[in-house]
Amino acid sequence: MGVDVIEAGFPASSEGEFISTKKILEEVGDNTEVIGLSRANKNDIDKTIQSGLGSIHVFIATSDIHLKYKLRMSRQEVLDRIYDNVRYAKDHGLVVEYSPEDATRTDEDFLLTAVRTAIEAGADRINIPDTVGTMQPFKFYDLIKKVVSVAGDKVVSVHCHNDFGLATANSLAGVYAGARQVHVTVNGIGERAGNASLEEVVMGAKKLFGFDVNVKTWMLYETSKMVSELTGVPVPYFKAIVGDNAFGHEAGIHVHGVLENPSTYEPLTPEEVGNFRRIELGKHSGIHGLKKILEDQGISLDDNSLREVLSEIKAMADKGEKITSEDARRIALKYVAH
Amino acid sequence: MGVDVIEAGFPASSEGEFISTKKILEEVGDNTEVIGLSRANKNDIDKTIQSGLGSIHVFIATSDIHLKYKLRMSRQEVLDRIYDNVRYAKDHGLVVEYSPEDATRTDEDFLLTAVRTAIEAGADRINIPDTVGTMQPFKFYDLIKKVVSVAGDKVVSVHCHNDFGLATANSLAGVYAGARQVHVTVNGIGERAGNASLEEVVMGAKKLFGFDVNVKTWMLYETSKMVSELTGVPVPYFKAIVGDNAFGHEAGIHVHGVLENPSTYEPLTPEEVGNFRRIELGKHSGIHGLKKILEDQGISLDDNSLREVLSEIKAMADKGEKITSEDARRIALKYVAH
Repeated sequence: MGVDVIEAGFPASSEGEFISTKKILEEVGDNTEVIGLSRANKNDIDKTIQSGLGSIHVFIATSDIHLKYKLRMSRQEVLDRIYDNVRYAKDHGLVVEYSPEDATRTDEDFLLTAVRTAIEAGADRINIPDTVGTMQPFKFYDLIKKVVSVAGDKVVSVHCHNDFGLATANSLAGVYAGARQVHVTVNGIGERAGNASLEEVVMGAKKLFGFDVNVKTWMLYETSKMVSELTGVPVPYFKAIVGDNAFGHEAGIHVHGVLENPSTYEPLTPEEVGNFRRIELGKHSGIHGLKKILEDQGISLDDNSLREVLSEIKAMADKGEKITSEDARRIALKYVAH
Repeated sequence: MGVDVIEAGFPASSEGEFISTKKILEEVGDNTEVIGLSRANKNDIDKTIQSGLGSIHVFIATSDIHLKYKLRMSRQEVLDRIYDNVRYAKDHGLVVEYSPEDATRTDEDFLLTAVRTAIEAGADRINIPDTVGTMQPFKFYDLIKKVVSVAGDKVVSVHCHNDFGLATANSLAGVYAGARQVHVTVNGIGERAGNASLEEVVMGAKKLFGFDVNVKTWMLYETSKMVSELTGVPVPYFKAIVGDNAFGHEAGIHVHGVLENPSTYEPLTPEEVGNFRRIELGKHSGIHGLKKILEDQGISLDDNSLREVLSEIKAMADKGEKITSEDARRIALKYVAH
């Protein structure tokens, strides 16, 4: 579908992951960069090299809370680990992306020092993770601006988590501030509340910020469905872009508008992302929507009959029933002159 | 749970909605404002008055696209409708909130004229809807700043749709710009990709922007579950704040960190929003997480045995199996000295 880079796995984390990373690499071919995740130690890097990958994503945390409770290391030790391991991976000919894990809760001066250290050691890209999702777009924009100015000609990337529902907004704020790579997942799956979702970031970058994106957007819906089937995690009904209701219209006023001109209540066409428009019936339905739905099924009624059918539908909906276009047809048939 | 205002329904849209609005009003009592939606016409307003509500949310669109394809009205006709109907509702003693529907696609000068007209007619609050969800936080912030300066001492409200996954971010940008009311729905349900979700806006306003919010946050999870059961729409597994995975940890590095100190990988405690922490087992699991999970079930193993159990678990996970803490216990029992 035209993504630029695929992070295929974490080869050192398990034997199965090592094998699957290798298989993904073989499958993908030469037009897409495939990268593997690695802690900042030589064992992990060696395992990544053994998997055949040409790109590595090396991470080590930089926030005080991670240094104290998880790494039990000093700041200087962390800087040494960054330098030594980025250098080691570069010496083995890899493309190296470095992430200061928990960047957004890291002392800002130390974060920028860590970024400079990685670049001095040869890092090709710097990725800034909002590891626990505590950023908001205005703050993240300011932070990424600073990282971009330190990173010089190296690509800056962002990796946002969705703990407050802001992963997409923060990712786009990062792009707006100069980041030129975004870590995303299909359907936003990931640790806790997940990561920024491919669908939303791609469409937001393109439509709301005017950036070029290589992704074939018409493949978004089918890709989302495929990942949902493979993972067993349903796509949320109200998910932006790829949810089954993303182009659904129920309120009478909305249905009326969409039938006159879809752009009244749609910010983009469902075809653009491979999704479908759904006109639904319910207690907020109006006569225009009903008329259109029945005509699509070959039934044409006068306005009085339409009003009768609509009132039956609303009575059903008021009882909490879900009304399909087939139900509408069944009711309408009573009013057709026989 | 301490919300300030409940929009209970659209009394003129169906008889059932009229009755349910009345019942909600009776149920809620005097401490929470209950408001009803109404088009800008006297029939709708009369119906709202008949329902017994003391507050009304009057809307009429202001964007050219809605004027042309839906309303078939001129800008002057729209201004007249705003003035006459806000005035009519005020004359009947109602608290009046006015929404210029599709505000964010409205010519900015005309939008501000519409806002001024509503205020001249006596409107108490001005709500700015991003009807088709095409805003991004930086633009919306600028727009709301302007509306706030025109609105003077009247409360400005925002109503954001989620078509690009930005409803929460835009709502918070609105608050940051001076809005003091936000339209939200539990679980973000609503037309198309839904509305801004109560859970995310409340927690983001409180934790990321430092605003006071009256909502009892520890009721968010149970409220979300209740609305899901009543509507039949599942809460997304990865939903921020209230999803079943919102405080779930699987990667070994994450689990290790959380067991040392939850704040390493959690931006807030699950108790604060009534949710639960879930330590999971999978191909990214580490020895620390496994040890803790087994100890919680009364099983204590030496490091060699733990490594054996972990490698069995990873082999299962590599085959795509989902591993529970009970599975871990069953495997571990083989290694307990009998």
